[in-house]
Amino acid sequence: MKNSFGHTDFNDLNSPLLTSDEREREEGTGVGGVPIRVSDSSSGSRGLLTVIGAGPGDVELITLKAIKTLQRADVVLFDALVATELLDYAPNAEHIFVGKRKGCYSYQQEQINELIVNRAKSHGHVVRLKGGDPFVFGRGAEEIQYAAAHGLEVAMVPGISSCLSVPASQHIPVTKRGAAESFWVITGTTKAHRLSEDVALAAKSNATVVILMGMSKLSQIVELFKREGKSETPIAIIQNGTRKDEKVGLGTIASIENEVVQQELTNPAIIIIGEVVRHREQLLEIKKSHKHLEEVAM
Amino acid sequence: MKNSFGHTDFNDLNSPLLTSDEREREEGTGVGGVPIRVSDSSSGSRGLLTVIGAGPGDVELITLKAIKTLQRADVVLFDALVATELLDYAPNAEHIFVGKRKGCYSYQQEQINELIVNRAKSHGHVVRLKGGDPFVFGRGAEEIQYAAAHGLEVAMVPGISSCLSVPASQHIPVTKRGAAESFWVITGTTKAHRLSEDVALAAKSNATVVILMGMSKLSQIVELFKREGKSETPIAIIQNGTRKDEKVGLGTIASIENEVVQQELTNPAIIIIGEVVRHREQLLEIKKSHKHLEEVAM
Repeated sequence: MKNSFGHTDFNDLNSPLLTSDEREREEGTGVGGVPIRVSDSSSGSRGLLTVIGAGPGDVELITLKAIKTLQRADVVLFDALVATELLDYAPNAEHIFVGKRKGCYSYQQEQINELIVNRAKSHGHVVRLKGGDPFVFGRGAEEIQYAAAHGLEVAMVPGISSCLSVPASQHIPVTKRGAAESFWVITGTTKAHRLSEDVALAAKSNATVVILMGMSKLSQIVELFKREGKSETPIAIIQNGTRKDEKVGLGTIASIENEVVQQELTNPAIIIIGEVVRHREQLLEIKKSHKHLEEVAM
Repeated sequence: MKNSFGHTDFNDLNSPLLTSDEREREEGTGVGGVPIRVSDSSSGSRGLLTVIGAGPGDVELITLKAIKTLQRADVVLFDALVATELLDYAPNAEHIFVGKRKGCYSYQQEQINELIVNRAKSHGHVVRLKGGDPFVFGRGAEEIQYAAAHGLEVAMVPGISSCLSVPASQHIPVTKRGAAESFWVITGTTKAHRLSEDVALAAKSNATVVILMGMSKLSQIVELFKREGKSETPIAIIQNGTRKDEKVGLGTIASIENEVVQQELTNPAIIIIGEVVRHREQLLEIKKSHKHLEEVAM
């Protein structure tokens, strides 16, 4: 289904809720079956917001759909974690930095919401470019809801989520046969700035536990796992994942705090707890044994 | 870091485990600090496996890095869930279908592993193209481990995971402020063909619960949530997510089984349980009210 901007919605709220009869009646309508005015230029239209995930940091880990959507943008609102090279896909669009950066003016969420609506109404197609996946702790859903409530058309393009790809990039898969049949991703810092209560339950589970933004709560986290007799469970901490300044700390629940001090690890970091962490080590062992074999053969 | 195929590893096992001194000593080496032979052609080299995620179904939800890697492939081994259009990025490579399809010969995992190693040694660069993200219930880690153990260089390119993007494409974000501060992804069918024990614990948690391949265990799942007093918790089932034949069923824990019968929902499907499911409904309500306002204004 194409909307009035010629943009094919990946996620338009279309047919699945409707019966086939209803679907026929709704043919030629837009998001959520709402009739949309088809216009060649964006002036006079309702305005469109597309929320796009830029991936974990590596500029090539953006999707083809995201690139094509950027090329059609009139305005791009981007965050601090987004590589500025990606703005080159929208050379004629207005670029507005709305992230948090030391020494810079910091937009509040409400101001970003208003900016999206105002720019979409005056310019046409606003792209909101966010790091990782905007629907995983990214407040993408909130921005879409606000925009829709203010009469905008809405669309989204998912991104490669850091919570899965950063561990994978360090050869730590979140699932592995025999090691983990589930994974649980938790934010370390809730709205109320407390450690999420889910972490205590996660320590009791067999899941691979992935904690984002949890470095300031690390002793609390470690304590919860110790209480479940998991002192020897492997844990990894990846700071600035997939970027040039990436750092990795490895250990067990018992040893990790010492490792953090040694390596001076801090936020932004991803904490991964579970048997899957051993996969990295196993791979290194395999590599080492091959190195040894090659040397013997020389 | 470039390997002998001129391929920049997204995830080479490089510096983070090493001190800066060690890092200097390892300059010019390959995956895991293992010396690699630099050669212009792939013949005589050790062979390379790159495991690539193709995303959830929409052919544009593949990353730029995946496309570039496919262009350098000598052989592509692809699964049933991968759109065959993606093979056009590797027109000169050998394409081998190794997925499961009715009436076709079905490769066993061990055979796929052997094929990877043999083809990499004879042809050079083997790309293993898998649906979604190969490190989320995708056995990508196993294939990489096998390949490394047989002397291949290994690399990976993550994909857009279906477990996050399929719900998001139906306007169900796995997290949302005030609704969910964590999400737990569980396979419905374990190695032992039983429902994972994690589901019972997940029913006690505040997490958004995402269950893959769980349709045959739906009554058991519903029972576990009822036992925790969650009969009114919203639940969504998305079959064939992001594809043309996508179907969506919505309801509560109490009503969903009836919905499944009505709509004839079955695997492959993703089950999402939690307050975030309401986001879709809220958005539809907003859309409807705007439609109403527009009609009044006409």
